[in-house]
Parts: sequence; C-alpha cells; structure tokens
Amino acid sequence: MIEELLEKEYTSIALQQDGWVLHVTLNRPESRNAMSLAMVNELGSVFDAIEGKREIRAIILRGADGHFCAGGDIKDMANARAEAAKSDTDPYYQLNKQFGELIAKVNAAPQVVIAVLEGAVLGGGFGLACVSDVAIATDSAKFGLPETSLGIPPAQIAPFVVKRIGLTQARRLALLGARFDGKTSVELGISHFYAADESQLNDTLKDVLSSIQKCAPEANAMTKSLVLRAAEENARDLIDDAAKLFSQAVQGKEGMAGTMAFVQKKSAPWDSE
Amino acid sequence: MIEELLEKEYTSIALQQDGWVLHVTLNRPESRNAMSLAMVNELGSVFDAIEGKREIRAIILRGADGHFCAGGDIKDMANARAEAAKSDTDPYYQLNKQFGELIAKVNAAPQVVIAVLEGAVLGGGFGLACVSDVAIATDSAKFGLPETSLGIPPAQIAPFVVKRIGLTQARRLALLGARFDGKTSVELGISHFYAADESQLNDTLKDVLSSIQKCAPEANAMTKSLVLRAAEENARDLIDDAAKLFSQAVQGKEGMAGTMAFVQKKSAPWDSE
Amino acid sequence: MIEELLEKEYTSIALQQDGWVLHVTLNRPESRNAMSLAMVNELGSVFDAIEGKREIRAIILRGADGHFCAGGDIKDMANARAEAAKSDTDPYYQLNKQFGELIAKVNAAPQVVIAVLEGAVLGGGFGLACVSDVAIATDSAKFGLPETSLGIPPAQIAPFVVKRIGLTQARRLALLGARFDGKTSVELGISHFYAADESQLNDTLKDVLSSIQKCAPEANAMTKSLVLRAAEENARDLIDDAAKLFSQAVQGKEGMAGTMAFVQKKSAPWDSE
Repeated sequence: MIEELLEKEYTSIALQQDGWVLHVTLNRPESRNAMSLAMVNELGSVFDAIEGKREIRAIILRGADGHFCAGGDIKDMANARAEAAKSDTDPYYQLNKQFGELIAKVNAAPQVVIAVLEGAVLGGGFGLACVSDVAIATDSAKFGLPETSLGIPPAQIAPFVVKRIGLTQARRLALLGARFDGKTSVELGISHFYAADESQLNDTLKDVLSSIQKCAPEANAMTKSLVLRAAEENARDLIDDAAKLFSQAVQGKEGMAGTMAFVQKKSAPWDSE
Repeated sequence: MIEELLEKEYTSIALQQDGWVLHVTLNRPESRNAMSLAMVNELGSVFDAIEGKREIRAIILRGADGHFCAGGDIKDMANARAEAAKSDTDPYYQLNKQFGELIAKVNAAPQVVIAVLEGAVLGGGFGLACVSDVAIATDSAKFGLPETSLGIPPAQIAPFVVKRIGLTQARRLALLGARFDGKTSVELGISHFYAADESQLNDTLKDVLSSIQKCAPEANAMTKSLVLRAAEENARDLIDDAAKLFSQAVQGKEGMAGTMAFVQKKSAPWDSE
Repeated sequence: MIEELLEKEYTSIALQQDGWVLHVTLNRPESRNAMSLAMVNELGSVFDAIEGKREIRAIILRGADGHFCAGGDIKDMANARAEAAKSDTDPYYQLNKQFGELIAKVNAAPQVVIAVLEGAVLGGGFGLACVSDVAIATDSAKFGLPETSLGIPPAQIAPFVVKRIGLTQARRLALLGARFDGKTSVELGISHFYAADESQLNDTLKDVLSSIQKCAPEANAMTKSLVLRAAEENARDLIDDAAKLFSQAVQGKEGMAGTMAFVQKKSAPWDSE
C-alpha cells in the first residue's frame, strides 16, 4: 500500500521511502516551495494514506533546493480573487480553511514528524514547522510572519505558534511581524536543534532516527496522541483513558515483545528493522 | 475623539499622544505608582475609549519617576476595611475584582501594548506587566510577588503569571514570594527585552515601534484576538473562525492595499504614517 | 495528628518531621525506589492525611540512597499479569490508574512540594518530579522516559510532562525515549535549580525553606490552588473566584496579622516559627 502511494504522480511534492522513514519533499523550488492548493491536497492525501500504517515510523519533511516553504502561493490567491468575483461561495475562506486543516492533520500524524528547516520558513511554512515533533533549523533558515505587513492576519499560523512557544513570545512575534534566524528559533523553542552545516544536520538526523528506532511504533503513536490531548485537556481528565491505553499496550503485541526482550536482554523486534 | 480623551483631567495617570502611539503613564510617584482604585478606573476608561480606534496602534505603558507600579494601594485597603465594617456589600471583593477586570481588559486591547518596566514591578504592577505584548525590563527593575508574606494571595496576579510563563515557574515564584531583577525577568520569559540603560531602552523602543509601523492596524488587531483565543482554546476549533477572518481581511481595505503595495513594490499606506 | 502519621509503619516510604517540614523518603533502595503499588498507597495516605494540616508547610520528597525513583515496579507488573489471567477485572488498568491519581494528588497538595532529584528519575519517577513546586536536580540525576522502548506508552507520565514543559519539548522527549542529565533538566524547565554537589544542594534547600517561611501557610495554599486552576482554565473565568478568595484572606487571621505586622515593621507570626 505504501508502494501505491509512492507510485502516484505528484505535481508539488516528492516522496521517497527509506525503510521505515518516509521522505516528503515540498517540491516547487521555482517559488521557494510556496504552499499551493495542489501542495496542500497532495500533502493531505499522503498523511491520510499513512495514518494507519505503522511500517512508516518517521516522516522527514523538507523543502527542495534549500528552502523549506515560503508561505502561501500568490497565484492561488489571484485565482481565488477571480473566482470570488463570479461566485456565491467564498474561495478565500475555503483556501485558508483547507490549509488550517492540513496543519492540524500533520500535527496529529501518528508517526514522528521531523522538519528540516532551511532557507525560507515563512508564513504557512512557519506554521507547518510548528507542528513537527522534531525540528532542526539550519544556518540558512529565515523564519518570519510577514502577513500583517501585507494587511492580512497569519490566521491559520498564529494559533499554532501559540501552541508551539506559548502566548508571551507568540504575541510579540505575530504583532511585530518578526523575522529571525535558525539559532534564534532554537532559543524561542520553535526548533529543537540547530545545525551549522550539512554534516551537523546529517549527524542530528542520524541520532534522531536512531532514537526513534528504539521506540515501538504503536506505543509511540499512542504516546503522541496522549501528548497532544494533554496540551488541550486537563491532566486529571486523562488519567482514566491513559490507564486504558496502558493496559491495552502492555497486553498487546509490542508490550509482550518489549518486556520479554528486556528480561532476556535482547533487542526488541522493532529495534533491528 | 482621541482629543476628548487627552483633554480629560486625570488624578492618577497621564496621557500623551505621539502620532499613532499613546503614552499612558501611571502617575502617582509619591507611592511608586501604587494601583489605587482611581488609577484602575482611569486606566479602564482609557482602554475602553480606544478599543475601536485603529488610529492608535501602540500604547506605551510606563510609570512616573523610575518606578512601574508598586502594587495595590494601602489607603484603598484601609478604606475598604472601614467600609466593610458598616456595609452589607463586600468592598474587598469589589476592589479586587475591578483590578482583575482591568488586567483582562489591558490583555485584550486591540493595540500593541508595550510595557517599560523600571524600579518597582510588584504585585499588581507585576500582573499588569504580564499582559503586555512587548515588555522591556530595565536594569533598575525589581519584580516581586510579596503578597503571601502579608498573609494574602496574589489573587488576580498569579493566574496571569501562569498565562505569561507557564505553570512550572509560576508555582515556584508565587509560593516562594520570589523577588528578582530585570535580567532574570527575561530569562523567565516575563519580559522580552533587557535594557541596560536609557539609551538601550530608547533604541529598543524605536525598533519595536518601527516594526509595528510595518504592520497593518486592523490585521494586527485581528491577529492579537486570534493569538489570545489560541492561548485558551483548541487549535482545531479555531480553524473555521480563522478562515473567516482571513477571507474578510484579504478582501478588506488593508488586504487590498497591502497586496497591491507589495506587487507594486511600494510602501503600504500604514507604513508611512 | 501528625504524630499519628509518623508513628505508622511503612514498608516503602519513610517519614520524618522537622518543624513545619515533612521529609518523605521513597524507601526501596534495593530497586532504586521503584514505584510499587505499596509505595503508591503509602504516599497517597500521607498526602491525604496532611491535606488539611497547615502546620506542615513544605514537603521534601527524596529517594533513599542516591536515587529518586526508577519508575514502575516490575514485580507489580508480573503480579498484575498473573491476576489478569484469572480475573474479570483489569489489574493493569487499576495499577496504572492508581499511579495517575497519586501524581494528581501530589500536584494538588496545599503544601509546597520540593523534589530532590538524584540518580534515577525515570518513568514514574519522572512523572512525580513533574508535579513538584520546586525541583532541584543534582549532578547525579539521570532523567528518562524509556517506556516506548519497552513497547508501552508513558501513559500517566507524558501528560504531566506536557503540563511541566509544554507540548514542543514534551513531544520530542516522549517520542524519542529521551535520556538527559540534571543540567539539561533545568534548561528544559523540568527542574528549577541545579546543584553540583551536596553542599550546593543543602544551600539551595536552605534558601528555599527560608523563602517559604516568610509566606503565610493558608495564603500559600490558596495561591497554589489558583495557580493550578489558571493552568487549566481561562484567566477571565477566574477573576470572580479570585476576588472572593482575596476578600476572605484579607479579613482572615493571616491577612489581619500579616498587614498589622507590616505596618508595625515586625515579623509576621508565621515567619518566626
């Protein structure tokens, strides 16, 4: 089924599988990988397709040719404007909502989502960076929220910046149309790691993947879902559901295999794949 | 209408307009600008009056004579005590609640609120600092939550400290009656900038105002309202409202002018005021 | 009544009172103080018993013999497995839920909870550390969330890690089965202080206790309850309750004594105990 996904033709992204890692490349280098409607739809279909597939344990999200993503696509906006003139529906609303739903979908992916942040990480690209589980910013990264300087709000982005780094820095960044570099993104808590060059980036990626390999795929998916719920719900309210998940996991295939491997001082099955 | 506001007589604050910036000075230097009931009311009336006025784009909140605000006013407390003895109502409750409502109002102001934090930033002054969009702490700043050492809780303040810096540091600061300086306030995430002297303070203010000038006033107000909602609501639940605001903004006066200016490589209208 | 508590026999913890400080030691050094069901129950009974007792103002939580707590106990898990085979109920669920409820109880304790984090701070021990009001990590501390490498989720722990340090770092730590030291725990915002050696640890403890002594016990309990609510509720919704607590406190025994002591430039009664 992953094969099916890989064999599809894409106009705006590129896929490559490497064992349990799926490389997803934003692939519109001519516009610094600006987030077109086609890209939103293609990314959405990929995340939908792998949602139930534990054979994919990590996704590396990266832009082609040294840029992550320069934000929304101007052409889509122009098309929406043309359509708005002759239509009863609201194409701007639709366009923006679909993008917001994609961000929410990537946030909730059961896999570990790793973002490699190079060059432009602007507007929608910034929003996408904010829902990764592991973000690595390179020396070339330029983050920014330029929306309000264009007279529009970073509507789907600002909320995810708040969830990423909290209210205090988010309000400053959003209201001052801030721009900053990769090192600052780590200080602000947007990115987890800073890589000064390609070699440091590759080392960091290798370390991260090696950590993920030790973690059971289904247990990780459960954990991510709990972590995301804890960001929105009272801790007390989660106790009961957490206990149910724990019981299910410990009696499940991974729990049995993991604890047995531990007792026998062997590698767990998922650690040698 | 701003003129009307400026011509009013105030006992506890002072106002001054400088283009699209409104300077609001806490002005009771004899008590290190302690937050009296009169000050709460005067501040409240100013923030009410400018709520719908986009010609004011930033507010600089500062205390007279080198102190921001030393907290609640002792005289008000004594008056409340006298009244409590002879009244059916609860003047302490009223006093405290009005202060809490002021803090919430400043938090939600559609303008960018910049706090200049010098000298005493104690109790209620600390609370007020915690709802600014940009906080600049100077070398003289002394932050503190002395309430519990007086046998009372920092009732309206502690919650806003939690929203400002999160539970983990807030619980320590509140339960240990912590005192700390301006540099530490930046490390804790209460302030955004540290200014070693007047000249650094002025440079920082100039930079901040120059960033705000590039941002469209209505787009900024929309953004701030979304950011504040994101701090309290699930990100998923905001997608629809955010898309509506986006559509409204992109087809509105600022959105049209901003995107046209961008295409024509000119300054947006709000950037030359 | 505290005497009664101290005279009880415990299998898995040890208690010692030192004035208004209660030392609670996790006391199963043979298993690096792994959190057995007996320990969960004994800790729970202690926190229940002192809930209403303001003569205990601080709790120092520490593990015996240089380890804080190595996580869940393997024997309990084995017992649960044996029981699960012959029972209708779900012993794993029960076990895990009781642990979650203990964490929530420690979180909500009206006293200031100080955790001394040495050696193993793993799994459940990590969770317990995350609900302290003041956490001091020593040079020997080794934090970790090894659960998913065993095929199970850190079900009751991950949510409290999110509440402790926010979503962004929590998702990385939980999904990568992270391990890190005491200094990093301060950088991540899990611990408040780092102590390089026993002497620094004792100095830090002394400073913390001296700060707590200045704070009125009932005012601190009120404050902690507000702080915890602020982490889960909208700030606006708290204004009214906060004003009620404030009024009650200021007219109460501590509020009267504290403000009088302040006016008379004397120590408050709780500051000389």
